[in-house]
Amino acid sequence: MLAGSSVLVTGCSRGLGLEMVRQLVARGAGRVVATCRAPQEAEELGRLAEASGGQVYVTRLDVTEHESFQEFGERVRGICGGEGLQVLVNNAGVAPKSTRINMVTADQMTETFLTNVVGPLLLTKALLPLLGQGAQTSDVGSVVVNLSSILGSIAENTQQGGLYPYRASKAGLNAVTKSLSLDLASLGVGALAVHPGWVQTAMGGQNAPLTPQESVAGVLGVVDSYTRGQSGAFLDHTGATLPW
Amino acid sequence: MLAGSSVLVTGCSRGLGLEMVRQLVARGAGRVVATCRAPQEAEELGRLAEASGGQVYVTRLDVTEHESFQEFGERVRGICGGEGLQVLVNNAGVAPKSTRINMVTADQMTETFLTNVVGPLLLTKALLPLLGQGAQTSDVGSVVVNLSSILGSIAENTQQGGLYPYRASKAGLNAVTKSLSLDLASLGVGALAVHPGWVQTAMGGQNAPLTPQESVAGVLGVVDSYTRGQSGAFLDHTGATLPW
Repeated sequence: MLAGSSVLVTGCSRGLGLEMVRQLVARGAGRVVATCRAPQEAEELGRLAEASGGQVYVTRLDVTEHESFQEFGERVRGICGGEGLQVLVNNAGVAPKSTRINMVTADQMTETFLTNVVGPLLLTKALLPLLGQGAQTSDVGSVVVNLSSILGSIAENTQQGGLYPYRASKAGLNAVTKSLSLDLASLGVGALAVHPGWVQTAMGGQNAPLTPQESVAGVLGVVDSYTRGQSGAFLDHTGATLPW
Repeated sequence: MLAGSSVLVTGCSRGLGLEMVRQLVARGAGRVVATCRAPQEAEELGRLAEASGGQVYVTRLDVTEHESFQEFGERVRGICGGEGLQVLVNNAGVAPKSTRINMVTADQMTETFLTNVVGPLLLTKALLPLLGQGAQTSDVGSVVVNLSSILGSIAENTQQGGLYPYRASKAGLNAVTKSLSLDLASLGVGALAVHPGWVQTAMGGQNAPLTPQESVAGVLGVVDSYTRGQSGAFLDHTGATLPW
C-alpha cells in the first residue's frame, strides 16, 4: 500500500525514523511528513529532504506536547490537502536505561508512558480526520503503525524481568492499538503494533543483530503488504505474529 | 496461605477493599493493614476495625503520593514487626468514565496510569523488605496480588474497544506483575494479576453479575491456595488463567 501513499513518521532525526524516511523515498511513497523535535539540528534529515525535491516535509513535533497536536494537524492538512494521510507511523519513543525494581522511579514510569503511549494515542486522535480521508483513496484503507517491542509482550517476558517503564509502556501501547483497531474500523482506519526487531541504534546498542536498514526494510515490507484483516495484530519486522 | 498471615490491602474505604478486610477477618488472617485516603471518613471500615479487637489496622495512604511510601513502609514495619508481611493486595484503582477516542485526554491517561500502575509498583518496592521477611515464615513465600481486569487483556479485547486509559493501565499493570514475578523470586516473593470479575460496586455498576461478597470470596480463595509455581499468572476470581 506504500506506493503513492502519504505517510507521516514521528521521531525522524535519527535511528529507525531517519532510515524510514530514506526508504520511503526509495520505495516511491507519496508525500512523506517527517517530524522531529528540533529540525534545525537534524542535519541528515534536512539533507534527505532537500535531495527529495519536495517529497519530504520536515515538520517540528514533540510527541509529549499534546496541546500542540491540534495545530500540528492543521499544518499536516495544509501539506496533504484533500487526499489525507494513508499511513501514520508512531515511531518516536524513549527507553530509560535503569531496569531493576530498586532503581525504578515514578518520573521514569510516567515520562515513558507519556511519550510511548499517550503521544501515539493523542496524535492518532488529532490526525483522525486526515486518516479517514486517506482511507477513501486506498484499497486497504489507511493504517496507524505503532512501533511497539517484543519487550511489551507479557507472554514472552519469561527470563529477564525488570524494564518496568519500557515494558509497561509497550504493553499499554499494544492495548491502545487493539482498541484503535476496533474503534476506527468504521472509518476505514486500521492499526498495527510492530516490533522492529533488536536494532543497532542509540536505543538498541551495538550488539544488536539487525542494522537499521534491515529492520526498516522489514517493517516497511509489513506495512506495504498490510490488509484490513490484519488490523489489531502485533507483528514483528518479518510479519510474524507475536503473543501479547 | 491466609490463615495467620499479615495482609496489607489498599483502597479499603468501600467496594472490594472493604469487603476484603471483612472476609480476611472472618477467614482468620493475622494482622490486616487496611489503607484508604481518608480514614476519618471511612466509617464502615472504622467500625470493622473496632469490632476486630486490634486485628485490623486502618492506616492512611494515597497510592498516588509516592513520596510518602518510604515513611508509610516504616509505619507498616511498626505494625508487623519482625514477622513482616505475607500478602500485599494492590486493590486501590480508578476507572475513568469516558471511553471513546474522541473523548480521551492526556490527563485521563496519565492519572489512571499513575494510580493503577505506578502506585502498585512503587508500593511493592517500598514494602519489599517486609515482604522478604514475610516470605521466610510462609511455606509458599509471600505474594503481591495486583487487582487487574479482564479489560486489561489485549487478547480478549475483540468486541468493545475504547476504554483507553483503563485498558492501557491494566495491560501495563500486567506487564509489571510479570516482571515482578521474575525479579522477586529470589526473595521468595511472588506476584499475581487477579481479575475480580465484573462486580456490583461504584466502579462496576449495578448491572454487574457478581456481588462484592462473591467476588472477594473468589479472589481470597485464589490467594489462599497460591503456590510458588503460579507466580506471574493472570487469574480470575475462579482461579482460571486469562490470556494477556
